[in-house]
Amino acid sequence: MSNKFARTPEPPYYAVIFSAQRTEGDNGYGDMAERMVALASQQPGFLGIESTRDEAGFGISVSYWASEEAIAAWKANMDHQVAQQSGKRVWYADYQLRVAKVERAYGKSKGK
Amino acid sequence: MSNKFARTPEPPYYAVIFSAQRTEGDNGYGDMAERMVALASQQPGFLGIESTRDEAGFGISVSYWASEEAIAAWKANMDHQVAQQSGKRVWYADYQLRVAKVERAYGKSKGK
Repeated sequence: MSNKFARTPEPPYYAVIFSAQRTEGDNGYGDMAERMVALASQQPGFLGIESTRDEAGFGISVSYWASEEAIAAWKANMDHQVAQQSGKRVWYADYQLRVAKVERAYGKSKGK
Repeated sequence: MSNKFARTPEPPYYAVIFSAQRTEGDNGYGDMAERMVALASQQPGFLGIESTRDEAGFGISVSYWASEEAIAAWKANMDHQVAQQSGKRVWYADYQLRVAKVERAYGKSKGK
């Protein structure tokens, strides 16, 4: 229905839940965020991403992955990229990252 | 730092990832959403919730739970409440719900 939803396969698969409060100003964040999504989608095992942020700058992004190995490979790649940028300290006032194994999924589109 | 973050314990624990596109108009949604959060926080095993929505009405809410049993009890309670309301069909154009087991967590506040 909306392309904001990730078209994930049947579980099990993995989710990286990233919740973050953005700092004021862009400071190169927009460019970086776009590049990160492009980078993730090329990564083996990438299943999709859902992302949203309110007007106060509080955002949640959930990326979905086929395996823990896929997450580890993507993280290494991303850490390298982020290290070349001004980095998390500038973009985020606070953040939490959680790695979780998706066990069940339901959706309206699937008729539930 | 921000009270928008859930203060979760060390993993493992569970996450319910709910991504949804809201329909136009309130239709009693605001009241219901508030009541649902209040209801969840009183539920045994509730660990916290993080929630955000963009201007186009695409939202992600992640609630955290101590166990699958806690999720099941909350879901039964919520289904009962929602059934008394106009319900999901009116509030959401589309949604996905995923139940996942959080295995690892990192945060800026923890110095990582």
